[in-house]
Amino acid sequence: MSETNPLQINLPRLKASLLELSNIGFNPNDKGIYRSGFTHADMEARRWLMAQAEQEGFFSEMDGAGNVWLGLGELDQPAVVVGSHLDSVPAGGIFDGSLGVMAGFEILRTVKEHNLELKHPLRVLGTAEEEGRFGGMFGVQAVVGGLTPEWILSAHDADGIYLADAMREQGLDPMAALDAAWPKEKMKAYLELHIEQGPVLDTEGIPLGVVEGISGVFKWIVHLKGKADHAGTAPMNMRSDAFMGLADFAHEIQRIIDEDGTDKSRITVGKVELKPGYPHTVPGEAIFTIVGRDMSEQVMEELAEACERTLRAIARRHRLHFEYDQVSWLGPSYCTPSIIDLMEKKAKARGWSYQRMPSGAGHDVQFFADITDAGLIFIPSVNGVSHAPDEWSHWHHVEMGANLLLDCVLEKAC
Amino acid sequence: MSETNPLQINLPRLKASLLELSNIGFNPNDKGIYRSGFTHADMEARRWLMAQAEQEGFFSEMDGAGNVWLGLGELDQPAVVVGSHLDSVPAGGIFDGSLGVMAGFEILRTVKEHNLELKHPLRVLGTAEEEGRFGGMFGVQAVVGGLTPEWILSAHDADGIYLADAMREQGLDPMAALDAAWPKEKMKAYLELHIEQGPVLDTEGIPLGVVEGISGVFKWIVHLKGKADHAGTAPMNMRSDAFMGLADFAHEIQRIIDEDGTDKSRITVGKVELKPGYPHTVPGEAIFTIVGRDMSEQVMEELAEACERTLRAIARRHRLHFEYDQVSWLGPSYCTPSIIDLMEKKAKARGWSYQRMPSGAGHDVQFFADITDAGLIFIPSVNGVSHAPDEWSHWHHVEMGANLLLDCVLEKAC
Repeated sequence: MSETNPLQINLPRLKASLLELSNIGFNPNDKGIYRSGFTHADMEARRWLMAQAEQEGFFSEMDGAGNVWLGLGELDQPAVVVGSHLDSVPAGGIFDGSLGVMAGFEILRTVKEHNLELKHPLRVLGTAEEEGRFGGMFGVQAVVGGLTPEWILSAHDADGIYLADAMREQGLDPMAALDAAWPKEKMKAYLELHIEQGPVLDTEGIPLGVVEGISGVFKWIVHLKGKADHAGTAPMNMRSDAFMGLADFAHEIQRIIDEDGTDKSRITVGKVELKPGYPHTVPGEAIFTIVGRDMSEQVMEELAEACERTLRAIARRHRLHFEYDQVSWLGPSYCTPSIIDLMEKKAKARGWSYQRMPSGAGHDVQFFADITDAGLIFIPSVNGVSHAPDEWSHWHHVEMGANLLLDCVLEKAC
Repeated sequence: MSETNPLQINLPRLKASLLELSNIGFNPNDKGIYRSGFTHADMEARRWLMAQAEQEGFFSEMDGAGNVWLGLGELDQPAVVVGSHLDSVPAGGIFDGSLGVMAGFEILRTVKEHNLELKHPLRVLGTAEEEGRFGGMFGVQAVVGGLTPEWILSAHDADGIYLADAMREQGLDPMAALDAAWPKEKMKAYLELHIEQGPVLDTEGIPLGVVEGISGVFKWIVHLKGKADHAGTAPMNMRSDAFMGLADFAHEIQRIIDEDGTDKSRITVGKVELKPGYPHTVPGEAIFTIVGRDMSEQVMEELAEACERTLRAIARRHRLHFEYDQVSWLGPSYCTPSIIDLMEKKAKARGWSYQRMPSGAGHDVQFFADITDAGLIFIPSVNGVSHAPDEWSHWHHVEMGANLLLDCVLEKAC
């Protein structure tokens, strides 16, 4: 195959398979997909995909963690793995996760129908419970050997259903998830295609994103405590208004990013509770979240330090008591530079524009970077929407993404 | 009686009566007073006060609205009325309302024991349901003729209990409240003593407030609508963050007051709801209240106009949809200038410092200014606290307030 006339995936076939998959767990009332991890619909989708693959002569199996593996070629050499997740959030869309798995399946089909000779076997991975019913990233952590028995036994969903019980109900032995770990030396690369789930590519009119990594994230719960006064009798200058402290902080967020962050920094106040929360009462307490992100852990530390310094000053100014609880701190993870280079090279060879970018959301790929060469391709999400029934990506972008993935797979496998 | 050696109320007697009253509806668990309008405790307090007055030879009656009237002297001349409310908020303090009624009773006792000759009869009024169980200001509106049958029949509390049923349960005929209207020509003046319920006098160390009026108040419910994005994938400059719009507005409140308000202006954001309200999601909607106050209706209008202009600009800047609902608009009400002058003159004669000030909270007095000469005296609330068990006012301030009230009553009645 020449660079000037590269192999192409079959878009009508990929589209038909994606749409067929989207019937599983579809709710006609809200048009959403309901395939949360280890629900009947989730398992039905996995069995459907395995049956499809077997029918077409591919290898297929489900590992102990519920991950689906499809394949072509013996594991006498390290495998090139293409994957993403098969589960969905409740009321999700048809592309999130499914796109990457079905693009992998389409690549298997393309390779097979062109009788390409492979130096390395191909494997397609549909991971289990990525979206978070039981905490998320379960299947991929099983593959990279990150699970513990304690983890498996303690995980439960928001309704109090234990992961172990949900797995048993689906005929799976929870402890068998520990056997799903893949020997590091048997993987040559992990490649993933996913929708961006953000507005950047769509807004800027760029069809492809080459992801540099998953930004690190910290979450704080902040408590500002002042004094709840009568909104009529307390003069403005005698108040200790906790909400005004919060508002002053929010006003400083852009300055904090300008001074201590990067263009990849994000600081978000997403949840606010005021007490007592009456229109005619000066808020005595404000409890709110801060979620900060960046691609550099040092920048994350500088942003956190700036948030704390700013809040301390604001608390003094408004006579508030300030405290915060750092609920979580996850450092950034990086895609493998050689894979990033490969993706850029292949996009250029096709003459397609692309953007190097961080991912602000977590993806299966982030766990593979520790054990193999790993990379992630984004295609645009219309209006940046995902995790909703109106999640959409244009089919010509699906085709471009799958073809770029194909080019990279062939480079690594042939 | 000379100005240099004026008559004094009897503080130990006033204190003993106030403390006795505070046993009615007292909850030993939270130390709060529970005498919401037309509860058993509220009615017990009214009957107790009437029995006290009758026992000492004063006139006593309950009108059709549940207001208690105590008196000295025949109504052959317009009466000087001293009043406040006898009901409390749930978990209230011992001074709010009760102070003014019991100070009036103490003045009756003082006048009687000194055998003072009155040109005008004295009446002490303990109003019903001022605090708002059924909307508030019920008793005083009955006295000034402001009730309608529709109002009486439609009023209900937060538990869905109708005012009419609550009154019937206490042996009152709800429609008899319409007969409680006092003939305008039979009132010479209405004078009230109340705790400030705010921090100004306590903070500034001034023992007395001469109230100029009740500030007008408007209440808005504002809706800013942007777009709920993933807090990781949406860059700061591509967001339509409704909370950031609210924070920008809050940041402008002091400027709005500086530019368009007065030192009596108050603008408060007391209640905030973010949607969806998740830490990892950019807030797509912010619904919040604005309560604005001033002593001038024109200033209120300018403040409201400035709030709207500011919000429109902020909405454009953050790409938000902005709308608001003006839930209420009540103009300011003013105490009678001659009564304000009288209170100032009497305070000066005693050598006491005082401050002219607005009231940011509503009081019975505001309804009397339309039918008679009316005025209100404040004493300090420790730390500005009221509507709570730890509401407190120092006894020496109680004594000063009651004596200033006495001086004004005697000036009008003798």
